[in-house]
Amino acid sequence: MSETGYTPLDPQTLPHRLGKVSAVVERVGDPSGWNVREIGDGNLNLVFVVSGAAGQVIVKQALPYVRLVGESWPLPLKRAFFEHNALSRQAARDPGSVPEVYYFNDTQALVVMEYLTDHVILRQSLMKGEMHEGLGGFLGRFCARTAFRGSDLHLNAATRKRDLALFADNIELCDITENLVFSDPYFAAEMNRHTPALDPVVTALRADRDMKVAAQHMKARFANNAETLLHGDLHTGSIMVKDDMARVIDPEFATYGPMGFDIGMLIANFLMAHCAQPGHLPDQAQRAAYQDWILDVVTDIWSGFAQEFTNLWRTERTGILYQATLFEDQNDALGTEQARIDRLCAIWQDMLGFCGIEMHRRILGLAHIAEFDQITDEALRAQCEARGLVLGRAVTIGRSTIRDMDTLKDLVRITTERDYL
Amino acid sequence: MSETGYTPLDPQTLPHRLGKVSAVVERVGDPSGWNVREIGDGNLNLVFVVSGAAGQVIVKQALPYVRLVGESWPLPLKRAFFEHNALSRQAARDPGSVPEVYYFNDTQALVVMEYLTDHVILRQSLMKGEMHEGLGGFLGRFCARTAFRGSDLHLNAATRKRDLALFADNIELCDITENLVFSDPYFAAEMNRHTPALDPVVTALRADRDMKVAAQHMKARFANNAETLLHGDLHTGSIMVKDDMARVIDPEFATYGPMGFDIGMLIANFLMAHCAQPGHLPDQAQRAAYQDWILDVVTDIWSGFAQEFTNLWRTERTGILYQATLFEDQNDALGTEQARIDRLCAIWQDMLGFCGIEMHRRILGLAHIAEFDQITDEALRAQCEARGLVLGRAVTIGRSTIRDMDTLKDLVRITTERDYL
Repeated sequence: MSETGYTPLDPQTLPHRLGKVSAVVERVGDPSGWNVREIGDGNLNLVFVVSGAAGQVIVKQALPYVRLVGESWPLPLKRAFFEHNALSRQAARDPGSVPEVYYFNDTQALVVMEYLTDHVILRQSLMKGEMHEGLGGFLGRFCARTAFRGSDLHLNAATRKRDLALFADNIELCDITENLVFSDPYFAAEMNRHTPALDPVVTALRADRDMKVAAQHMKARFANNAETLLHGDLHTGSIMVKDDMARVIDPEFATYGPMGFDIGMLIANFLMAHCAQPGHLPDQAQRAAYQDWILDVVTDIWSGFAQEFTNLWRTERTGILYQATLFEDQNDALGTEQARIDRLCAIWQDMLGFCGIEMHRRILGLAHIAEFDQITDEALRAQCEARGLVLGRAVTIGRSTIRDMDTLKDLVRITTERDYL
Repeated sequence: MSETGYTPLDPQTLPHRLGKVSAVVERVGDPSGWNVREIGDGNLNLVFVVSGAAGQVIVKQALPYVRLVGESWPLPLKRAFFEHNALSRQAARDPGSVPEVYYFNDTQALVVMEYLTDHVILRQSLMKGEMHEGLGGFLGRFCARTAFRGSDLHLNAATRKRDLALFADNIELCDITENLVFSDPYFAAEMNRHTPALDPVVTALRADRDMKVAAQHMKARFANNAETLLHGDLHTGSIMVKDDMARVIDPEFATYGPMGFDIGMLIANFLMAHCAQPGHLPDQAQRAAYQDWILDVVTDIWSGFAQEFTNLWRTERTGILYQATLFEDQNDALGTEQARIDRLCAIWQDMLGFCGIEMHRRILGLAHIAEFDQITDEALRAQCEARGLVLGRAVTIGRSTIRDMDTLKDLVRITTERDYL
């Protein structure tokens, strides 16, 4: 992970620099015919599409600073190492869920991976009112498989502890999550921004003692509860879709954390897409139908998660926790079912806790989302965002009393049909 | 941490092998006059007292296997490295609480440390009915200072993550805790043993679904909730006392885990000493007075812990959690007091959860305690142990409803005045 010898790629130098890597040439064809296009629109990295006679690949290279902010905010190149390691684990734990990796270069902090033809970022699709068959089930299963198979429920304990040590070095990206998600939204931090008309709601939220305490309790869970290897940044901008196909990308924030984190962040992003619809679908009936579809996806995410978690619990519980020795082998299979229900209940609660906070930070913090940002009517945008803030608060604070999906969906409907400004 | 070149010490070779180490010679005097005595009575290591003209030191050397079991159970020498690292952190976090380290040799897996003149293992003292002024306060403060100052409440996050990675390699000793404490007592594991007359109580306990599920939930918390650097084996055999002086020794099981673990194990050992008193103090009045003293120590441990935790929360909360930026700096000091009460409540609950399990494993597992083992009247021993099993069950299962120390002490009295065989 040395930074010595690192040079950022550009479209001109890329064919020369990668033209001798057989894994790349094999997929793209003769380098003399390569066409290189920079498409990076994320917050952190360079991303190129390389096209040639044989096909296309994505080349993703880390920059030594946060692209969104500039060179004043340095960020280590080793995040490419963590992304590469996370992708390989996710590919093994949920085959077909992530792009295939063809080549990794540690010094250059670059990963060459599968180009997902005609796929778009899910967030874009959600702004256009498009529906994707099976999306929630896919995402729920991805969360369940990566959570379960990366934990002490499944892995050999020594393997998991070594992996924990490896990812513990992803310090700087964890630091971003710890500060930007859990703390900055709740005071006037320097890099924050928000739609000015939100001021009264923001003032109330930042004076809300219970919310601030809850956010810090969830931060403690994120920082200390090393239950499984997380994606770490699972929002709708980290998902590529085409019709009923989907893939999860960009796991450079990977870290060990609580099982409810990824799924909580993910559901938050669907709930925000729901809140933002008045800015994207002006037709009331069309909008209501699409918002219902979004809530169906949320329902499917959780039920897909719970079903797959249950399935894996019954068939792949090979780790040090809740061993068959103590239950099934003692003719007490119901004991592990009782334990499973407890654990799913705890994950549900964490999911809600993280979900509300993610909604807050995307409206008040540094990194916003396109669904809100692209609403040009500022009064309308503020109204949508205010609903997100109010809903986020209700979800996080209600994490131990919102017992099931129907209650959560009722809360979403009740919260989003009101005005707060 | 190479094992190459490692040779176990013995009293004959020790002066030759350590006689050129200036840090040792300085403390003991000229090696030609050294007297070496092997005093190891623990489960894992060689321990020598080296005496000379200038003074005495302890030499502790790891063996490549579990001494209690024999060479058939190999155990890596690197545990000396973890003990050394844990001792240095404890010394910094609670000065004077642990023996001073004079010399560490990684290859030989040995630590040379302060000899605690005329100190005895606390467990021995508890069997003689001796009282130690200030003991509970000392132990409670030790738990609070090491827990708080080793966590994200206090440390720089990068420092803590690097330290987490370092201790994550203490795999084999964690494995012992994970299996021997949390799982083996609850089924007929090979290395278990128990007083035969306990059979009916043991059968009931091993058929107790709620208890087994609770033990596995606590195991998950131990394995995954990396809140702070634990001692990892804080029982009354890991504490040396002389009158009102005390020191904590033997942290080779050090690992990152939940804040309630050390204090829960510790309190369990006092409660077992309480249960065992009928085997050591035959005089009823004397015994009752001593049992009251033991419960006073338990009270002092918790109140010492809570007071010191509160003090450090208010004065040294410099980590990433519950930052002053969000509370005190916003004129909301009460917000952090609310959060502190929540956290103490969670630690109390974990403490109870771990406490009951430690009581079970010391009666049913591989590693027993002298207080019970030295009761030669087998029927009396079984009666004392049965009370320990019943109390342990009540404490772990009641962890969310036993709200305060008075309730816990009532439960101890109610449980231990009955017979179960």
